[in-house]
Amino acid sequence: MIRLMLAEYGVAFDLDEVSPWKREQAFLEVNPAATLPVLFDDEGAVVVGPLAAIHHIERFHAPEAVGGLVPTDPAGQAETWRLTEWALGKFNDEVTRYVIEEKIGKRELRSGSPEPAVLRAAKHNLAEHLQYFAFLFATRSWVAGKELTLADFALAAHFSCLDYLGDIDWDAAGEAKDWYARLKSRPAFRPLLVDRMHGMPANPTYADLDF
Amino acid sequence: MIRLMLAEYGVAFDLDEVSPWKREQAFLEVNPAATLPVLFDDEGAVVVGPLAAIHHIERFHAPEAVGGLVPTDPAGQAETWRLTEWALGKFNDEVTRYVIEEKIGKRELRSGSPEPAVLRAAKHNLAEHLQYFAFLFATRSWVAGKELTLADFALAAHFSCLDYLGDIDWDAAGEAKDWYARLKSRPAFRPLLVDRMHGMPANPTYADLDF
Repeated sequence: MIRLMLAEYGVAFDLDEVSPWKREQAFLEVNPAATLPVLFDDEGAVVVGPLAAIHHIERFHAPEAVGGLVPTDPAGQAETWRLTEWALGKFNDEVTRYVIEEKIGKRELRSGSPEPAVLRAAKHNLAEHLQYFAFLFATRSWVAGKELTLADFALAAHFSCLDYLGDIDWDAAGEAKDWYARLKSRPAFRPLLVDRMHGMPANPTYADLDF
Repeated sequence: MIRLMLAEYGVAFDLDEVSPWKREQAFLEVNPAATLPVLFDDEGAVVVGPLAAIHHIERFHAPEAVGGLVPTDPAGQAETWRLTEWALGKFNDEVTRYVIEEKIGKRELRSGSPEPAVLRAAKHNLAEHLQYFAFLFATRSWVAGKELTLADFALAAHFSCLDYLGDIDWDAAGEAKDWYARLKSRPAFRPLLVDRMHGMPANPTYADLDF
């Protein structure tokens, strides 16, 4: 999500790879919560966690010349934060976290193979979320309304991770498929589509704009 | 937390009591995630969830004449959001949610008595968090630094809930006790201290400024 924001705003950055599951001491000293992202700003600020990163970018790196990712009207702003929180909180807790921990965390820690019951629960929850997104997309083009917002990037980042692992059945995704196809075509999305995890190939259509 | 923000900013409001555990249809229609808070603004905006509420208040109700609850310098802003997220996310997930669900959710749903193993886990986690807060308070007066911020209200709201239920051992709380005593003495805190849940008395020192 943070990479999408930075790309959308045209902010250059370097990436370091961190495995939060390993809880390495050097990383815990930067962030005792062992979460990502962590941003190191050119001016020396260390920005820890999604909320801090979002606000740091919005405040210090959003170009004034382009429209921002948070609407300025009360209803649009509220809907953007409601659904950003949905993606970062509810969707993560009920879907993405399970899939990532089972498929990637366990692999990195060499702590066994994914638990089928957990993956089934995540799949079931994803289907419920997709129903809700279909309900939203019936009346709006983007997650929070008529315009692209932070909420689209928040949710699309989760979709991208799940899609890499082949965990989205696009035939059953309804309107969310069209929405994701539109996001995937944006320049800001390109860097994510060339990502590859060592030893874990992407789903064959992961980078296809027509999937 | 939202009540503390509104009181600090001098914004008047009425309270409705909602039991999110009951998942009542009328409430789910307003917020399908069944979370609190939900704000109904005089101008008609419906503001759903903690992040939307925080931003709505900061943007539309923070008086310009007083200092706000989010520092304007990059480091202070980042630390405020990092620790606000800590309270809303990590502390809630590891401590408050367990206690509230076991002691209040189950009671409201008449779905059995609190599970001792869950309460023991919450107690253990709280002790770890208190150690971290002691580390923070060794070098700062407020959670995120030299000034009172959003992060203090976020964490104090959790402390207040736990304290009501008698789940904080203040003798073992170290510097967090002094910090909480300072917050408890603020005018914004007073309305919380007169709260009483029907049929569930508060810990005897809940409202005492000297506890």
